[in-house]
Amino acid sequence: MDTTRQYAQSLDAQDSIGHFRARFYIPDEQLVYFDGNSLGRLPLATRERLREAVDREWGHELIRGWDSWIDLARSVGDVLASSVLHVPPGEVILSDSTSVNAYKLAAAALDARPGRGVIVTDDDNFPTDRYVLEGLAKARGLELRVIETDVDAGVDPDRVAAALDDDVALVCLSHVAYRSGAIADMVAITTAAHRVGALTLWDLCHSAGAVRVPLRESGADLAVGCTYKYLNGGPGAPAFLYVREDLQAELRQPIWGWFGRKDQFAMGAGYEPAGSIDRFLVGTPPVLGGYAALEGARITAEAGLDALAAKGAALTDYAIDLAAAWLGDRLTLAGPAQAERRGSHVTFRAPEAWQICQALKAAGVIPDFRTPERLRIGLAPLYTRFADVHEGMTRLREIVDSGSYASFEASLSRVT
Amino acid sequence: MDTTRQYAQSLDAQDSIGHFRARFYIPDEQLVYFDGNSLGRLPLATRERLREAVDREWGHELIRGWDSWIDLARSVGDVLASSVLHVPPGEVILSDSTSVNAYKLAAAALDARPGRGVIVTDDDNFPTDRYVLEGLAKARGLELRVIETDVDAGVDPDRVAAALDDDVALVCLSHVAYRSGAIADMVAITTAAHRVGALTLWDLCHSAGAVRVPLRESGADLAVGCTYKYLNGGPGAPAFLYVREDLQAELRQPIWGWFGRKDQFAMGAGYEPAGSIDRFLVGTPPVLGGYAALEGARITAEAGLDALAAKGAALTDYAIDLAAAWLGDRLTLAGPAQAERRGSHVTFRAPEAWQICQALKAAGVIPDFRTPERLRIGLAPLYTRFADVHEGMTRLREIVDSGSYASFEASLSRVT
Repeated sequence: MDTTRQYAQSLDAQDSIGHFRARFYIPDEQLVYFDGNSLGRLPLATRERLREAVDREWGHELIRGWDSWIDLARSVGDVLASSVLHVPPGEVILSDSTSVNAYKLAAAALDARPGRGVIVTDDDNFPTDRYVLEGLAKARGLELRVIETDVDAGVDPDRVAAALDDDVALVCLSHVAYRSGAIADMVAITTAAHRVGALTLWDLCHSAGAVRVPLRESGADLAVGCTYKYLNGGPGAPAFLYVREDLQAELRQPIWGWFGRKDQFAMGAGYEPAGSIDRFLVGTPPVLGGYAALEGARITAEAGLDALAAKGAALTDYAIDLAAAWLGDRLTLAGPAQAERRGSHVTFRAPEAWQICQALKAAGVIPDFRTPERLRIGLAPLYTRFADVHEGMTRLREIVDSGSYASFEASLSRVT
Repeated sequence: MDTTRQYAQSLDAQDSIGHFRARFYIPDEQLVYFDGNSLGRLPLATRERLREAVDREWGHELIRGWDSWIDLARSVGDVLASSVLHVPPGEVILSDSTSVNAYKLAAAALDARPGRGVIVTDDDNFPTDRYVLEGLAKARGLELRVIETDVDAGVDPDRVAAALDDDVALVCLSHVAYRSGAIADMVAITTAAHRVGALTLWDLCHSAGAVRVPLRESGADLAVGCTYKYLNGGPGAPAFLYVREDLQAELRQPIWGWFGRKDQFAMGAGYEPAGSIDRFLVGTPPVLGGYAALEGARITAEAGLDALAAKGAALTDYAIDLAAAWLGDRLTLAGPAQAERRGSHVTFRAPEAWQICQALKAAGVIPDFRTPERLRIGLAPLYTRFADVHEGMTRLREIVDSGSYASFEASLSRVT
């Protein structure tokens, strides 16, 4: 392969969505940011929108601002539905955190399958999903059936199928694995789950804005996800949830807050759930985070998921090729080799991954460490250049070649 | 009484916390804002802090920003604990919405009183509290015992006591009534609840930042509240929750998210709750709203609750006196006459309250309508002047005297 910087620049010159980088606030061009899958960058439009929301709306409109804020959760949901998740409007809404949404939808699903005693997940599901399911299983006296997943290969649909029976109420898995980037076969797994009458709940945190999500094609029932990774909604931005339209009338979530009530502002006696996706809302929605999620969703929608997924595949392929050319077996791929089987991040295994990760940060490259012994590199396609991959991998090569990482201490990161 | 504008100005001149108004962003000095108890004004410090958080922290620090963001929920909680709620540090934390927090704490309380079959609340509790309790009661097969409260007089402690027996697990009420402003007797009610072994959960939305909250004196167990009213945290800012320290080890909330787990970032198998107030957290916290809540809490803390409560009492007394002098029985007080029995808002009854409310908005005065036939006037003491009360009541007098309100149509507001 061509490992020159010139080649990276030629790839950037051919990049059909390369111009989107100019629409992000990038104050430090020396920093190589390989963690857009943990926290996406700041769009310039968001900066402007937040200033307007703070000064003109909160500062000047005050309580009257709710005339527009009240539609924000649905507006973001509709952008995500039409252009990111490719489902009909009214099936997605912004609300709470991913964890709270997972709780609401998992509980709603369990209520819709009374008498069934099993929840299925896997040991590679993101921790908060596993914890939320564990809590629900314990509270209801259900079995949490945890499938073993190979951390590099990702969910095996056959193992999921083997774990299913008529007693399974819910199958909850991540679509793109947070460590390896492996894509789960949503179509095969949802089909198998439906065959036994179970509902499916998908965690889309590492999917939304990075890859095509086959909610429609698979017939998936429920999904949750955050907006602060590939959707660039900013730190702790509100999460989204998806409920297939034909399930909405049947499902009721357990937290009966006023934003989920029919005719909320009549403030009447007794709870009656709203007749739409609004029934999955709970309390007063965060406006600043909502606006940031809106602008982040819009710029993602504008680039388009096909272009984003194609570039993500090219960027991750390129990183894998450079690693192979420069680092050989000192850093081995810990995820799918085929681009169509992974999201927009790649993960490498090295016994010294923690130390290498710290050395990279000291050298102005921001990756992520993941257990066990994994170096995770997120290549958000909206603003990451091939030249960034080249530069980051060059610094990585220097660190590994020189052994300079050995001067960093081994311990666990608290930032994810 | 002296109804001249000069008198109002002389009261402002003597106001020991009058200088705080200059620390808020007030772009329209003609607007009379009587709704700081729905959405507080924008502190200048918040404006600056949000710009810094967006540009320097999100934009430049990116994922590294979590090194400081991770402590935000606790930092805000500690300011609220020390200077707003007057409880020890570690008993308050910022998290989710008021509704989600009410759900978490009510569920935790019910789990801590197994075998008891009753939740007590009143029909004047804020709707979202009533709905959340209704949902929990229904899911668990419990009785929701709803006390009748006189909408103007507020909660009657004797009626609460009469509703209590050994089967009551939880008593949930608002400390300051959202309509009348009446203060519930937290000490008497908590004492009565504890006598039968029940736990208490208080909604402090209309209390925090307006009045002294006797959590400590009463021995109250649990509380929730928002930060976007008197605490000036901005639209949809995160809510707070309070759990008395000696209860924390015993209570477990039902939503087992990763932010509530011990050693969260080890991302290990199995949920074990954190050993502190952190166990009541769930998902990734909202950073922008968190910073706004922090600055809002700080400026409130700086003014001090004694000064704020005293000024709130003086402002509301003054509004009541002007209404009596100018409007006689055309607008009657619909709340406690004694200042020490009310929060920082006053409510008047008039059959045409909805139309008067619309006429006031058209005349540049922002009050709130409340059922039944109530005009609610919130006088946030941090930035409301006696001259504002005089000006707003002058415009109200003109509208009522002229009958001009009759040209506005009658219907319900959706904004609260």
